[in-house]
Amino acid sequence: DKPFTLIAGPCQIESRAHTQDMAAALVEMTQRLGIGLIYKSSFDKANRSSVKTARGIGIGDGLDILAEVRSKFGVPALTDVHTAEQCAIAAQAVDVLQIPAFLCRQTDLLLAAGETGKPINVKKGQFLAPWDMKNVVDKIASTGNPNTMVCERGASFGYNTLVTDMRSLPIMAETGQPVVFDATHSVQQPGGQGTTSGGQRQYVPVLARGALAIGVAAVFMETHENPDKAPSDGPNMVPVDKLEALLADMVAFDRLAKAKPIASYGIL
Amino acid sequence: DKPFTLIAGPCQIESRAHTQDMAAALVEMTQRLGIGLIYKSSFDKANRSSVKTARGIGIGDGLDILAEVRSKFGVPALTDVHTAEQCAIAAQAVDVLQIPAFLCRQTDLLLAAGETGKPINVKKGQFLAPWDMKNVVDKIASTGNPNTMVCERGASFGYNTLVTDMRSLPIMAETGQPVVFDATHSVQQPGGQGTTSGGQRQYVPVLARGALAIGVAAVFMETHENPDKAPSDGPNMVPVDKLEALLADMVAFDRLAKAKPIASYGIL
Amino acid sequence: DKPFTLIAGPCQIESRAHTQDMAAALVEMTQRLGIGLIYKSSFDKANRSSVKTARGIGIGDGLDILAEVRSKFGVPALTDVHTAEQCAIAAQAVDVLQIPAFLCRQTDLLLAAGETGKPINVKKGQFLAPWDMKNVVDKIASTGNPNTMVCERGASFGYNTLVTDMRSLPIMAETGQPVVFDATHSVQQPGGQGTTSGGQRQYVPVLARGALAIGVAAVFMETHENPDKAPSDGPNMVPVDKLEALLADMVAFDRLAKAKPIASYGIL
Amino acid sequence: DKPFTLIAGPCQIESRAHTQDMAAALVEMTQRLGIGLIYKSSFDKANRSSVKTARGIGIGDGLDILAEVRSKFGVPALTDVHTAEQCAIAAQAVDVLQIPAFLCRQTDLLLAAGETGKPINVKKGQFLAPWDMKNVVDKIASTGNPNTMVCERGASFGYNTLVTDMRSLPIMAETGQPVVFDATHSVQQPGGQGTTSGGQRQYVPVLARGALAIGVAAVFMETHENPDKAPSDGPNMVPVDKLEALLADMVAFDRLAKAKPIASYGIL
Repeated sequence: DKPFTLIAGPCQIESRAHTQDMAAALVEMTQRLGIGLIYKSSFDKANRSSVKTARGIGIGDGLDILAEVRSKFGVPALTDVHTAEQCAIAAQAVDVLQIPAFLCRQTDLLLAAGETGKPINVKKGQFLAPWDMKNVVDKIASTGNPNTMVCERGASFGYNTLVTDMRSLPIMAETGQPVVFDATHSVQQPGGQGTTSGGQRQYVPVLARGALAIGVAAVFMETHENPDKAPSDGPNMVPVDKLEALLADMVAFDRLAKAKPIASYGIL
Repeated sequence: DKPFTLIAGPCQIESRAHTQDMAAALVEMTQRLGIGLIYKSSFDKANRSSVKTARGIGIGDGLDILAEVRSKFGVPALTDVHTAEQCAIAAQAVDVLQIPAFLCRQTDLLLAAGETGKPINVKKGQFLAPWDMKNVVDKIASTGNPNTMVCERGASFGYNTLVTDMRSLPIMAETGQPVVFDATHSVQQPGGQGTTSGGQRQYVPVLARGALAIGVAAVFMETHENPDKAPSDGPNMVPVDKLEALLADMVAFDRLAKAKPIASYGIL
Repeated sequence: DKPFTLIAGPCQIESRAHTQDMAAALVEMTQRLGIGLIYKSSFDKANRSSVKTARGIGIGDGLDILAEVRSKFGVPALTDVHTAEQCAIAAQAVDVLQIPAFLCRQTDLLLAAGETGKPINVKKGQFLAPWDMKNVVDKIASTGNPNTMVCERGASFGYNTLVTDMRSLPIMAETGQPVVFDATHSVQQPGGQGTTSGGQRQYVPVLARGALAIGVAAVFMETHENPDKAPSDGPNMVPVDKLEALLADMVAFDRLAKAKPIASYGIL
Repeated sequence: DKPFTLIAGPCQIESRAHTQDMAAALVEMTQRLGIGLIYKSSFDKANRSSVKTARGIGIGDGLDILAEVRSKFGVPALTDVHTAEQCAIAAQAVDVLQIPAFLCRQTDLLLAAGETGKPINVKKGQFLAPWDMKNVVDKIASTGNPNTMVCERGASFGYNTLVTDMRSLPIMAETGQPVVFDATHSVQQPGGQGTTSGGQRQYVPVLARGALAIGVAAVFMETHENPDKAPSDGPNMVPVDKLEALLADMVAFDRLAKAKPIASYGIL
């Protein structure tokens, strides 16, 4: 019943200056809107379509830059981890660890993440049924860490296409964990441009508003000042100068949804 | 930008008395809520899973009963047609003809429906991409009838399962026709009970709220005073005594969505 | 365990001369190969993507032309029917009636077809699970007609795409009816060219050989002397001058499969 | 055009004795049949549905046991790797490294595997289009290692279900690499039993024969003397005492397919 938290940032950590500019913009925006912010950015794009595309700044510099953002702006930070070894290291610099969708069933990674004691945002695999996220939550809980976040980001639907099944939101909520809706990866077209993934950023507001009307704890959105020039995920990122108007309406839908919980209808 | 219209009623016309009871309840409810109503019920279930299940009351009695509802309650009526011959006949008794999803590409049926001059609500086939509804609209428009309604009711997703792709709402809106969201058939599980279809009525509010937050012209919902005893589609119908609370919230989401059109964000 | 029957012909009946040319070619080819032939062609394309594309020669001329083929070449003929009324009429001219995939759950059509007493080839809907064909067979059997053929032609797989699930062949065989594999519609890309369906005829041999190695009673293939000029289904028809080489190998796979039935492995 | 190689073994390395028994049985069987064998078994099940199920014997003992099999039986061995670090270690003990489907886009893992110089069998992700395996092959080739094998093991089809698109075999063959068909994981039902995956081993012969009739370089099959008691993947493993009869027929289909390559039909 609390307002949704925004998890946002550019797909990649591009540089110290770029990160601080983006964080500043997002901090101001969310303060104006009265919603929480978790700053998200990746130090490594570990599963790009092609080996010829940009990987990222690396874990050392990347975590330093994120730690600076935390201390300078007083905003929590999230980054994704790809190996068990990265978990403890990343946990020293950020507040939330994220498990990429392709890796959501890698037991060692989930356990290492859980053992950091940090909240863990797990993206539901494109190949996973929403009810199977219970097993993912249980893996992390087996480490004694009760703080998993379960995140919808689309399910495989034929080739090079994802579909968002909005039923997954209440189904994943049955785990008892906060449900996150990833509004920008859900419009990805995996592999849709040959050596990179395509995307349909025009449908981000469509899916974001739909999810908020159902009720989620957080929304994940990648943003960039110039998505068409971004080193990764450009086709599905929202231009930062278009973001506040969208967020303002999202706040309105969220408030309405939280005032009227779906469970109240008693339709069984 | 006008409030959504509710298209509702029990799946089948069960009897004169039952129809009038349902219509009375729906008329009162929608008047209290300040939304339009089109009363929907079928005289024939022409494509049941099994030959052993109830077909319906038949076209003669069925249309008489619907005509009575129209005159007694002053509410427009909708029914579905399954053959070209039925179109002109049904058009004398009801205000809107509906084309079932499986039949959405049957040219003769679409043309005969179009030629009645009535608005035609076409359910998008479970096998059809949303952009392909343009061809459907064009078929009807070729008769000189500009009034097609394009209706989302789920897409095939593996076996015995539908998924609602909310992107279909803005995609179908590009036809320039009113978009309808069928909130009860979208939770059907086709063939999921062996000789009948299953359904997940608990997710009707989930999908309905999601669709309204995006923006639709009408919502289609089947309802019954005792869905578990209904002769067809029970698993996905909403109990009529649970309907008004849901509709009241749907009105709130609709009002918010119409005040804040998605196109306004300019995310391209 | 008998050799497969070929159901083949051009998608549409284009003219008397064209039909006879095609029939002559197919009769000679199948005699050389020692397999049975059922000549297939449609008098009406009742569910084209767009209203602007060719519909066909019509039922009167169409059935006359097919009747001529039967008497002149001594070959049985098959055509598809789209309404209950057409069933008895078509049954006078042809040996097998076919129910299109979109119409596989239209009860009246199935019953009218069944009542002709002719064998009925039902294409499995793109939206139907293979086990649900049992209900279809039961509908036809309720007329006293035990001769249904159950035909795989692809399942919806995302948008504008079909996938062939080869498990459907043994699953549909559990109905006790002959299983047909439609090798050319299975490579269709529904709606994939905007106002017409696309197709990938290069994969016809792939799917045909796969199906024959599993074991089917009949293979359905559309063919044309110049598919790229055909009025419908060109992208998925096999050029008639490429057909015999493919069929010759299909005969070899069929023979091998029939000698080694899958049930014999006893893997349960 | 060479006979297919069999990649086979039990899902997990259960013990030294069990491994040697299985290897002995498979070596004898494939020698009788005149086909090549690569012995497959896993030292770690790194992505089980649930944390409560058996993980495996571990890398140290596992690789020792596989190395013994190689030297004792003179048969090449394959095992799967889950981290970049495991690649060089496993490469000292086995002949082929395998990349699990969920990990098929993890760049560091692919590069580390490639750098061993060993042939790398990459399972196509359940979320990946077959044409996108080109990017996977290119990642490995960027290390100077030209020996990738591309393996079909099913694509996501709704929830808890895979479908095998046989077109993927010729599509992946366009990479120029050997195509492997994984006949046992293709019948998996991921997560289909709550905390473990289900499977339909009765359809292994169906898909295996289909794939061989199209033409593949190798077939991957997991086998066990008592699948219902196996620690993992029991529902989709083939009982070892049923295997030879199936393989014998697979040899016959393979021989026929290799004699009649699909490309020869010239259908474009």
